[in-house]
Amino acid sequence: MAFEITDEFLENLVGLIYENNDLEIKKLFKEVHFADVAEVLDEVSFDEAIYIIKLLDSEKTSEILTELDEDTREKILENLSAKEIADEVGEMDSDDAADIIGELSEERQERVINALEDDELAADIKELLSYQDNTAGALMAKELVKVYETWTVAGCMRRIRGQAKEVTRVHSIYVVDKEDKLVGRLSLKDLIIAKSDQKIAEISKAKVDAVNVNEDDEKVAKIMAKYDLEAIPVIDDNNVLLGRITIDDIVDVLKEEADKDYQMAAGISQDVEANDTIWELTKARLPWLILALFGGFISVSILGGFETAMDTYPALFFFTPLIAAMAGNVGVQSSAIIVQGLANDSLKGSLWRRLFKEVLQSLINGFVLAALLMSAGMLFLGFKVEIGVTVAISLISVIMIASIVGTFVPIILDKRGVDPALATGPFITTSNDIFGILIYFMIAKIILGF
Amino acid sequence: MAFEITDEFLENLVGLIYENNDLEIKKLFKEVHFADVAEVLDEVSFDEAIYIIKLLDSEKTSEILTELDEDTREKILENLSAKEIADEVGEMDSDDAADIIGELSEERQERVINALEDDELAADIKELLSYQDNTAGALMAKELVKVYETWTVAGCMRRIRGQAKEVTRVHSIYVVDKEDKLVGRLSLKDLIIAKSDQKIAEISKAKVDAVNVNEDDEKVAKIMAKYDLEAIPVIDDNNVLLGRITIDDIVDVLKEEADKDYQMAAGISQDVEANDTIWELTKARLPWLILALFGGFISVSILGGFETAMDTYPALFFFTPLIAAMAGNVGVQSSAIIVQGLANDSLKGSLWRRLFKEVLQSLINGFVLAALLMSAGMLFLGFKVEIGVTVAISLISVIMIASIVGTFVPIILDKRGVDPALATGPFITTSNDIFGILIYFMIAKIILGF
Repeated sequence: MAFEITDEFLENLVGLIYENNDLEIKKLFKEVHFADVAEVLDEVSFDEAIYIIKLLDSEKTSEILTELDEDTREKILENLSAKEIADEVGEMDSDDAADIIGELSEERQERVINALEDDELAADIKELLSYQDNTAGALMAKELVKVYETWTVAGCMRRIRGQAKEVTRVHSIYVVDKEDKLVGRLSLKDLIIAKSDQKIAEISKAKVDAVNVNEDDEKVAKIMAKYDLEAIPVIDDNNVLLGRITIDDIVDVLKEEADKDYQMAAGISQDVEANDTIWELTKARLPWLILALFGGFISVSILGGFETAMDTYPALFFFTPLIAAMAGNVGVQSSAIIVQGLANDSLKGSLWRRLFKEVLQSLINGFVLAALLMSAGMLFLGFKVEIGVTVAISLISVIMIASIVGTFVPIILDKRGVDPALATGPFITTSNDIFGILIYFMIAKIILGF
Repeated sequence: MAFEITDEFLENLVGLIYENNDLEIKKLFKEVHFADVAEVLDEVSFDEAIYIIKLLDSEKTSEILTELDEDTREKILENLSAKEIADEVGEMDSDDAADIIGELSEERQERVINALEDDELAADIKELLSYQDNTAGALMAKELVKVYETWTVAGCMRRIRGQAKEVTRVHSIYVVDKEDKLVGRLSLKDLIIAKSDQKIAEISKAKVDAVNVNEDDEKVAKIMAKYDLEAIPVIDDNNVLLGRITIDDIVDVLKEEADKDYQMAAGISQDVEANDTIWELTKARLPWLILALFGGFISVSILGGFETAMDTYPALFFFTPLIAAMAGNVGVQSSAIIVQGLANDSLKGSLWRRLFKEVLQSLINGFVLAALLMSAGMLFLGFKVEIGVTVAISLISVIMIASIVGTFVPIILDKRGVDPALATGPFITTSNDIFGILIYFMIAKIILGF
């Protein structure tokens, strides 16, 4: 826990590498957790990282590889032979192994799988690679502890001693019938507490939650979080036990999902990090900015269309950024509340009730803000009453419309199978800018009659 | 898994409640998971929810209570006596019990704890309530399986049969010395695989990750996610074992943290949901809108200050929403990347390198966007060359400054102990609007000389 990457540690390490002092390097990493080694590898130069990976035991490096940043891992794997990758992968659980092999080119995937010494693992990996991304099948591991319902507790303990060695964490023991169909589960604790001559069928729980192999992984995450499960068995359409998903995989799914929503809200295409290259970062950001730019053109045209009002009411034009900003802020607030409600499955009640609630809220917000705006605008900025009234009425209307759009766009996107988080990003801010300015000038035209 | 709340289910349930048909209601809920029952209670009226809670066994209702929405739970607890709450809480693990008692008024806390039949649980709850919010102590449970290093495997198995009954999930078995100091850990699997006459000290792992009871809960979540831990022991400053934190609690911490960041980015004060009252929602939203409104006033004043330019270059004013929107979007993108980097501890390299990278990116984005703007603006919107050049140069400058501000504000906030996610919200959008417009008109003044 106490390990921190210090400059001294890195200097020392790099020095040792240049001396080829393998013994000392091994000693240096002996007590370091693989997740920390992975961080060290992200810090050193690429050649140094390769040196370290090739030096350490594959039992340790296999764990390090799974923890590495995807970009660093890709570069390291390029420098290992198929046989070397197979040695690393051979030490991993099937789910991690399949994830890493899945990152290789198809042709290399073949060669690595053929180079695996463990035929069973090779078959498991092939099976796991065959499932679609973002399904339970792609997330699960093949390693699990499985017993037949007809066994006794004592027999079961003997068999488990064999199976459990390959399974990092046992969680549940799954009970199957002779066709390998899932019929129940029990915990190691149940087994330890039971008498040794009891039958498994007597002590196992028949009610066992399971997910289908084709279930969406975010759905699996929701189920596991809702029911507080630490592992869930994965079955096919015939109830045959195929694998299991553990909660640590779900933690990753939840984090990825949250990161994705956050990035969408900020107008960044998925999956960039601060340490990505400038090119990758630009690629993720520029499309949204271009979208916003074209939105901006539309508002320029709208304002240009009202140019005649400039002579009589120049002050009207001073308020456009304010109106646009309020529309943008309100819209994002409304969308964010809906997006989170959808993510947590906590949106209840009819659409009409939601509409009513949103309109009422925006009326309250609108009146408070309009009152502030009128008093401040006229007292301190010295605007005429008719400008104050026009801006205030526009503000209330714009807030109301932005909040209605912000509420319903994510609901509609979700119904059409599009990620509703899209609605919290530049997409809705830009539309709200445009609508806001248009409504503002239309109301001004009606009131002021230019 | 297959349970879905249908209108028929609810109608049937409400009918049964009005008939006082307790037997049928119990039957109805018999096979339903407590997390699903909690959802049903959120759907029915408040009196109906109380009726159901009072009807079902406390073994089941205690689990339901922990799953309920906080608002619903609060209302239900208000309608239960101290004794009734004590019965519910008596069935819970110490961490859930402490969480729920912690929601009561101090005076009720006293009475509920005094009404508890289990003195040990009462003491545990008192201890847990004494730790500060958002620390490991407030998150941990007292239930764990603990063995002394001098025991044999066989003796250990006997004792564990006793302890394990009270512990829902065993995860690790913690090894302590005679002063209750944590010295190692082993898994149930290790115990099952070992020979029965081996000493615990021989088969346990001496290296055991632990967190201090005063550690920040988000730090604990990061450690557990990084090292893939499913449970972590909690110790005091003298290494004495106090409790343990399991990964399901961490899943909640991670979700809360992600929700909080997301809401901050959207300009919503923490902890509201779509189903909260209009008053709560308004309270969470209005302060940010007022902030944005005052930001808007500043931009109004700035524009007012350049009124003289209106006669010669009216088109300049048409571009203000575009410039403001671009500044806002770029700033939020930059901040979001930094906020996520800080959250994942993945920000590497010096500040100067980060600055260089950000400036380069914004130059690329700026030039592409300026080129698009000039060509589109002059070809389709028919603006004069000097306006086109002015807006283009301003756009590049504004993008560069917004991205630098967006990068450094969250870093500075983080260094000062303020949540950096604040920087992705209306706060930075509003400042960027103001800076953007100011820079735009200053550049215009220099180039066009009005």
